[in-house]
Amino acid sequence: MPEPFVIVGGDAAGLSAASKLKREAPDRDVVVFEKGEWVSYAHCGMPYYVKGDVDSLTDLLSLSPADIEERGIDLRRRHEVVGVDTAEKTVRVDGPDGTVEQPYGELLVATGARAVSDPIGGADLRSTFTIHSMDAAASLRAFLEAPGDTDPSALDASVDRERLLAYADRTPPETAAIVGGGYVGVEMAEAFSAHDLDVHLFQRPERLLPPFGEAVGDAAEATLREHGVTLHLDTAVERLRGEERVEAVVTEQGTTPVDVAVLGVGVRPNAEIVDDTRIERGDSGAIATDEYGETTVADVYAAGDCAEMTHAVTGEPDWVPLGLTANRAGRAIGWTVSGTPTPVGDIAGTAAVKAFDAECARTGIVSPEAARDAGFDPVSETVTAPSRSGYYPGGAETTVTLTADRESEQLLGGSIVGADRAAVRIDTLATALDRGVTVPELERLDLAYAPPFSPVWDPVLVAAKVLNGALAEA
Amino acid sequence: MPEPFVIVGGDAAGLSAASKLKREAPDRDVVVFEKGEWVSYAHCGMPYYVKGDVDSLTDLLSLSPADIEERGIDLRRRHEVVGVDTAEKTVRVDGPDGTVEQPYGELLVATGARAVSDPIGGADLRSTFTIHSMDAAASLRAFLEAPGDTDPSALDASVDRERLLAYADRTPPETAAIVGGGYVGVEMAEAFSAHDLDVHLFQRPERLLPPFGEAVGDAAEATLREHGVTLHLDTAVERLRGEERVEAVVTEQGTTPVDVAVLGVGVRPNAEIVDDTRIERGDSGAIATDEYGETTVADVYAAGDCAEMTHAVTGEPDWVPLGLTANRAGRAIGWTVSGTPTPVGDIAGTAAVKAFDAECARTGIVSPEAARDAGFDPVSETVTAPSRSGYYPGGAETTVTLTADRESEQLLGGSIVGADRAAVRIDTLATALDRGVTVPELERLDLAYAPPFSPVWDPVLVAAKVLNGALAEA
Repeated sequence: MPEPFVIVGGDAAGLSAASKLKREAPDRDVVVFEKGEWVSYAHCGMPYYVKGDVDSLTDLLSLSPADIEERGIDLRRRHEVVGVDTAEKTVRVDGPDGTVEQPYGELLVATGARAVSDPIGGADLRSTFTIHSMDAAASLRAFLEAPGDTDPSALDASVDRERLLAYADRTPPETAAIVGGGYVGVEMAEAFSAHDLDVHLFQRPERLLPPFGEAVGDAAEATLREHGVTLHLDTAVERLRGEERVEAVVTEQGTTPVDVAVLGVGVRPNAEIVDDTRIERGDSGAIATDEYGETTVADVYAAGDCAEMTHAVTGEPDWVPLGLTANRAGRAIGWTVSGTPTPVGDIAGTAAVKAFDAECARTGIVSPEAARDAGFDPVSETVTAPSRSGYYPGGAETTVTLTADRESEQLLGGSIVGADRAAVRIDTLATALDRGVTVPELERLDLAYAPPFSPVWDPVLVAAKVLNGALAEA
Repeated sequence: MPEPFVIVGGDAAGLSAASKLKREAPDRDVVVFEKGEWVSYAHCGMPYYVKGDVDSLTDLLSLSPADIEERGIDLRRRHEVVGVDTAEKTVRVDGPDGTVEQPYGELLVATGARAVSDPIGGADLRSTFTIHSMDAAASLRAFLEAPGDTDPSALDASVDRERLLAYADRTPPETAAIVGGGYVGVEMAEAFSAHDLDVHLFQRPERLLPPFGEAVGDAAEATLREHGVTLHLDTAVERLRGEERVEAVVTEQGTTPVDVAVLGVGVRPNAEIVDDTRIERGDSGAIATDEYGETTVADVYAAGDCAEMTHAVTGEPDWVPLGLTANRAGRAIGWTVSGTPTPVGDIAGTAAVKAFDAECARTGIVSPEAARDAGFDPVSETVTAPSRSGYYPGGAETTVTLTADRESEQLLGGSIVGADRAAVRIDTLATALDRGVTVPELERLDLAYAPPFSPVWDPVLVAAKVLNGALAEA
């Protein structure tokens, strides 16, 4: 009997791998060590829980601990893996009953990422949150609700009740600071606005959502302003100020009094666990992996927010921590460990985010600067076209940016923003990118036309026509 | 100076070609002969005009005759091309001022298609319509409105006023028959229901929307029934009965009294114009073309609903008259005639249709029977999956069918139906098809995930996972 498949981390990548292996090879033992209480939770849903669109924190769980046990997975919560010995093929685990050495047949490091807060002074003040843990989300929502509105009996057993109840008893905040204008910042602007707070968003770059490119950034900016969010762009936050609780945001431009702050200035891979081993980290700091998710050490895999993947356009390692990537890689590794080698697939950084009613999406290499950095000679065009036939009601202007390489005419990436089915349209580009499509080929795709859903020339095709024209002239 | 580029037919394909040539080679003469009054109108919008979603008939025009003249195109309405002499490179044209011979440098046959009504006896009764001409749409809407509601002064100059005003004066119908359950039938069910008619839809096959496959047909059926439409499936209409006006629909099962009837039992290519020439028609009856839209005779092109195109999956000629195909082929031919040879592109039969709140879409080869007919060994799976993360409000069950070839694992086609962004998702499959993607490759695509728009595994990916499993077992 081989040693068990040992998995470090009980979220998307880890549990996808565990579930797939138990399904394909039910006789194999699978042990999942999770250092915290929560398992299998949807990070991406937290802003919507805070907003109130999602009723219960437990709605964000894909699988309960009981579901996981039922799949035959040996789940050990409150167990932290503190060391890996790749020569002996063991991990050292600190748990409630002390430290043990656990042998493994194959090991999967799926330790995720953590929110960065250290660049911002005062991030440890109370009433300051990162939206990267279920407890933080629970406490923030309790804080936003009127005292007495939070029903402790309805809370999941895993929740940090003491922290939450302390916030539930306090007077709800009236003015919110959001530091960072990425996904979390944009989504939290919507969440705070839903609670009628006065919202200030501070963003160091000059635009929101930088990976989405200029057109999406500009559209998101316009949408947030329309919804009453005060934007402080091109503004570095020096520190959060307060006695015990956050009371103000200090920037070079001045001081803004606030009652609550959310930091969304990025995440960092939890990859330190491999530092005293032969398992290598890539330039991004995340763990380097091959096309099967295997690290530089045999039988040791890494997946999810702690791991690098191969970029579909550049063919180079890249680190883009996103939910599908984690699930897909975990599932593939489960297959591979079961005896069916299965590639984890490439990534294109395909992502979508809702900014109030603006659907924002991106894939591949959007900005000409990034394309040049990757060794391409980019040509980029941005068009605005209707989402439906002009005569059909309910359409919305849809702005598409496409970037291609001048010489090869290969599509490198694109972005889409609009209020009517804009986000889902990015999947057309993601699919095209994955297959190395050129712009002339993109222009000739036989996409669907029906007046309620798309004009004859879908906005993606309109953009392809314009970019094709630019390439012909270039 | 070369002879002009002569185009027969003033709708999507013809005017796309004319516009592109005038743009790329402004010195070339372009003559467009259109036998009727109307030019550049959106067939696909007519049901929505009848329904009332579109205010004015002229909203359905992409270009007015004045716009067309402004582009430098010599548009001659009420001119019918009645003969082609490919040896002399002339066409014979009947116009208001008699018959003339018009020499051409290049000729584009873009004569479209016509609604079929001959299999149904009584189709010439009054109050019986096909939704294939602007005048029919105008008359039907006038009929549905209360007497006095139709404002003749607001009508476009091209309209057949006499016919329209005769209908405008009549008592609006209360019971409608729709013969045929394809696009037109399904869209007209929605249009008649919006006018509070009692709607009977007669369909000879056992399902609605046959090219969309069983799952979409079943979903459309359920939706139409929910909206009070009486469906007579697997029911052949023998004839329409009435004195002067239609009064009843007669089938083998019985007689249904009605006040108005719409026939939507298919279209036929207007290809007879080439019958006494060396220009060949394909098996479908439409005009055979090559990858540049050129017919079997040099300098003679055909595009749009009268022409065959190459199918992306089979590589064989096929006839699927759809709007984007016509526009794209016309545009490409304009380029080619200007001196830049440009392929017209393949078709995959990608199509979408709205059935009340059900978004229906299809691409490629959906049904196993059709796949077998094309020489494949099909494996097909249908799954139903949520359109958004389970915890996020507003999602809808989305049913995806995927069909692949067992041996090569190549994707052959698919369909999607659901109420939340289902139709636009077909473009992911259309793009994948065009690039010859296998099901394992499809499963690994890096598509967008964000709770408001898609779950971690988009319904398309869920279907790919299930089909992949079936292929592995097969």
